[in-house]
Amino acid sequence: MADAAGGDHGAYALTFLWIAVILLAAKLSSLIERWGQPSVLGELLVGVLLGNLALVGITIFEPIALDPIILFLAELGVVVLLFQIGLESNLSTMKKVGVPAIMVAILGAVVPFVLGAWVVGPWLLPDQTFNTYLFLGAALTATSVGITARVFKDLGKLQSKESQIVLGAAVIDDILGLIVLAVISALVTIGVITAGTVGWIVFKSVAFLAGALILGHLFAPKIGLWFSKIHTGVGMKFALAFSFGLIFAFIASEMGLAPIVGAFAAGLVLDSVCFRYFRKPEVVEEIDEALADLHANERTRSRIGGILNHRAAHHVEDLLEPIAHFVVPIFFVVTGMMVDLSTLADPAILLTALGITVLAFFGKMIAGIVAGKGVNKWIVGIGMSPRGEVGLIFATIGAGLGVVTGSVFSVIIIMVIMTTLLTPPILTWLINKQKAEEAKA
Amino acid sequence: MADAAGGDHGAYALTFLWIAVILLAAKLSSLIERWGQPSVLGELLVGVLLGNLALVGITIFEPIALDPIILFLAELGVVVLLFQIGLESNLSTMKKVGVPAIMVAILGAVVPFVLGAWVVGPWLLPDQTFNTYLFLGAALTATSVGITARVFKDLGKLQSKESQIVLGAAVIDDILGLIVLAVISALVTIGVITAGTVGWIVFKSVAFLAGALILGHLFAPKIGLWFSKIHTGVGMKFALAFSFGLIFAFIASEMGLAPIVGAFAAGLVLDSVCFRYFRKPEVVEEIDEALADLHANERTRSRIGGILNHRAAHHVEDLLEPIAHFVVPIFFVVTGMMVDLSTLADPAILLTALGITVLAFFGKMIAGIVAGKGVNKWIVGIGMSPRGEVGLIFATIGAGLGVVTGSVFSVIIIMVIMTTLLTPPILTWLINKQKAEEAKA
Repeated sequence: MADAAGGDHGAYALTFLWIAVILLAAKLSSLIERWGQPSVLGELLVGVLLGNLALVGITIFEPIALDPIILFLAELGVVVLLFQIGLESNLSTMKKVGVPAIMVAILGAVVPFVLGAWVVGPWLLPDQTFNTYLFLGAALTATSVGITARVFKDLGKLQSKESQIVLGAAVIDDILGLIVLAVISALVTIGVITAGTVGWIVFKSVAFLAGALILGHLFAPKIGLWFSKIHTGVGMKFALAFSFGLIFAFIASEMGLAPIVGAFAAGLVLDSVCFRYFRKPEVVEEIDEALADLHANERTRSRIGGILNHRAAHHVEDLLEPIAHFVVPIFFVVTGMMVDLSTLADPAILLTALGITVLAFFGKMIAGIVAGKGVNKWIVGIGMSPRGEVGLIFATIGAGLGVVTGSVFSVIIIMVIMTTLLTPPILTWLINKQKAEEAKA
Repeated sequence: MADAAGGDHGAYALTFLWIAVILLAAKLSSLIERWGQPSVLGELLVGVLLGNLALVGITIFEPIALDPIILFLAELGVVVLLFQIGLESNLSTMKKVGVPAIMVAILGAVVPFVLGAWVVGPWLLPDQTFNTYLFLGAALTATSVGITARVFKDLGKLQSKESQIVLGAAVIDDILGLIVLAVISALVTIGVITAGTVGWIVFKSVAFLAGALILGHLFAPKIGLWFSKIHTGVGMKFALAFSFGLIFAFIASEMGLAPIVGAFAAGLVLDSVCFRYFRKPEVVEEIDEALADLHANERTRSRIGGILNHRAAHHVEDLLEPIAHFVVPIFFVVTGMMVDLSTLADPAILLTALGITVLAFFGKMIAGIVAGKGVNKWIVGIGMSPRGEVGLIFATIGAGLGVVTGSVFSVIIIMVIMTTLLTPPILTWLINKQKAEEAKA
C-alpha cells in the first residue's frame, strides 16, 4: 500500500527519514561541545559511528551514504559552507593583514604540501601512486580557521597579534588551498603533467578568482538594484544571494574547477552593499518604527540602533543560516560515514596516520617561525594546525576521483580528526601560559 | 573538463544551475503581484512557460523536469509548505470549524465523484469504460490545499473562518481522496474489492491522524525538553522542528498516505511551547540585554518587548522560512512545467475539458453550501476547487494502470490546470471584495 499514494512518494519519504536521522544524530553529537570540542568534530564522529555500525551487525543505516539525493545534499552542504565562509571573509581586512600573515600562509601551505607529497607520503605509504601523494600533500595545506577562532574567542584573545595573523593567514590559505585543489584535480583527470598544463590550470584558477572578484565588484550592486525593482522582499533577497552562489559554483565547475571555489568567490564578492535596496529584516523595521514612535532618547537610539544595523547588514548571512543548518551537517556526517574503521584494525595504517599527524603539526609550526617579532610563534603554529572541514573536502574530492582510496582516506580523516581534536587543548594551554607570563612581567 | 573537479561534481553543478534558474524565474514572476495576483500563480505560469518553450524550439530547459534531484526538491517543497501551513494552523481553531469542515470535505469529494463517474463522464466521453469514469471521478475529488493556502497566506487571510474550513476540509479530502484512489486502484488491479479492504484503508487513515495528534500533543513538549538538555542553540531548534516534519511525512507514507498529510499533522502538533527551553533569536537576546542596561522606561519595554516576544514565539517559523524560499518555488514551477500546452490544439478535447472543468468547480461549490452560517460560501467553494498536484497524481496513476489514456488524460490535465490557474485570481477577487465589504461595515 505504501505506493498507493502515488508514484515516487515512497522512495522520497525514505530520504526524508534519512535527512531527519542525519540532522538529529548531528545535533546529539553537539554534546561534544561540553568537553570544549567544536561541533564539527562531533558531526564527523557521529558519521563515523553511523557508517561503521555494520561492523557490529547493524546495517539499517547502510543505505544513507548510497542515496544519490543525500549525496547531492552533502555536496550542496559544502557549497553552502564555502559560500558562508566567503561571505564572512572581507577582502579589505585581508589586505590589512600584512606581510607576516602572507608569509605564514604561504609557508604553512608549501611546507606541508612538499613534505607530504614528496617526502613523508612516499616514505610512510610506499605502495601508492604519485597522484595520491599529491592529494595527501594538498589535504595537509588546509587551515580550518573556525576552530582556532573559537578558541581565541573563548579566551578573549581575538584581537591579539597572534590571532590576527592566524585568521588572516587562514583566509589566504583557503584561497591557496583551492588553487592547489583545482590544479591537482585537473592534473589527476588529465593524467599528464607538463609545465604547460600546470601553467594553464594555475592561470585559469587565478583568472577565475580575479575575474569573479573584479566583475562581481563591478556588477553585483547593479544586479541587486535591478532585481530590487521587481521586488524588494526577503524572498527576493534570499533567492538572489543563493542563486548567485549556485551560479558561481556552476561556472567554476564548467571551467574545470571545484564548485566550492565558485561558491567561495561568490561569497567574497557579495556584501551588504548589493542588498541596500531591499527591505530590512522584519524585526528591524518593527523596532525602528517603535523607536521613532516612542521618541526614544539618543542613548537608546544609538545602542539599539547599533544592534539593528548589525542585524540588517548580516541579513543575507542570517537567511542562509537555516539552509546551512539543513545541508552542512549532511556533508560532515556523510564524510564521517565514508571512514572505514576496519582499516584501523591494521596497526600499520594507525601508525602511518600518527606519522602524518605529526607532519601536519610540524609543517604549520615551521610556518609559525616567520610570524615576525613580538609574536608567540608556538601559538601561531598550533593555531594554524587544525585541518577541519577544508582537509575533509580535499579527501572527499580525492575519493571522488578514485585517487584517495581505502587506507589513505582513513589516514587523512584520522589526521584531520587529530589536528582538530588536539588543537583546542594545546592552544588553550599556550595562551594561558602567555597570559601568566604577561601578568608576571 | 567539467568533471575535473571530481566525480559527480559536474552533474551536481548542472542541478545547481537549474535550482538558480527556477528560483530566479519564480522571483521574476512575482511581478504578477503588481496586478493583485498571488505570487504562486506567477510561479505556476513561469513553470508552464519553461515547460513549453520546446514548442517554439527552445529545448534548453527540458532537462529540468527530468532531473531526479529537482523532482525530489519539488516534493520536499510541498512537504515544507504543508508543514508551514500546519505550524500556522491552530488545532483549537480547527476544532471550532470542525463540523463544517467535515461536511464540506465529504460533500466536496462525493458530489464531484458521483457526477464525474456516473453522469458527466459517460455523457461527455461516451466511448470509455466504467473503470475510466471511476478514475475521472476520483481525480475530481482531490483538493490541492497548497495553492489555496498560498492565496490565503499571500492575502493575509490564513486565520479567517473560510481559510480554516478550506484547510481543514482539504486535509480530510486528501485522506478521502487517497482512500478513493487506493480502493479504485485495487478494484482495477484485482477486479474485486471487499468491505474488509475498504474498512482497513479507512481505519488506517483515521488512526494515523488521530494518533499523530494525540501522541504528538503528549510527547512533543517532552521531546523539546530532552533535546534542550543536549543543546539550546538555534541549530538544535531548527533540526528538531525540521526533522519532526520529515519523520511525520515518512510515517504517513509508510502507512500508505501522502507524505504531505504527515507534514501537515506535524505542523499542527508543534507549537512554540515545545521550544520554550531553547534560546531566543540572537537579536531578541541582544535587545533584551540592551533594554535592561539602558534602564528603559515601562512604555519602551512594553512596546519593544511585545515585538520581541512575537518574534521569539515565531522563531521556528522564521527558521523554516528560508528553507521554504528554497524548495517551495521549485514545487510550483515544476508542477507548471508538467502542463503540456500542445494538448490544447484539439478543439474536441478542449471542449470536453471545459465541460469537466465546469463540473470540477460546480461540485466544490455545492460543498461550499454546507460551510455553515457567517461564512462566505463562494470563497469556500472556490477555495476547494484547485485539483493541483493531487489531481495530477490521480491521472498519472490511472495512466500507469492503463485506464486513463490519450484524450482522457489530456482532459484531466486540462481540468487540473484550469482549476489551478483560475482559482487564485477568482479567490483574490472574492477575498478583496469581502475585505471591502468589511471595511464598509
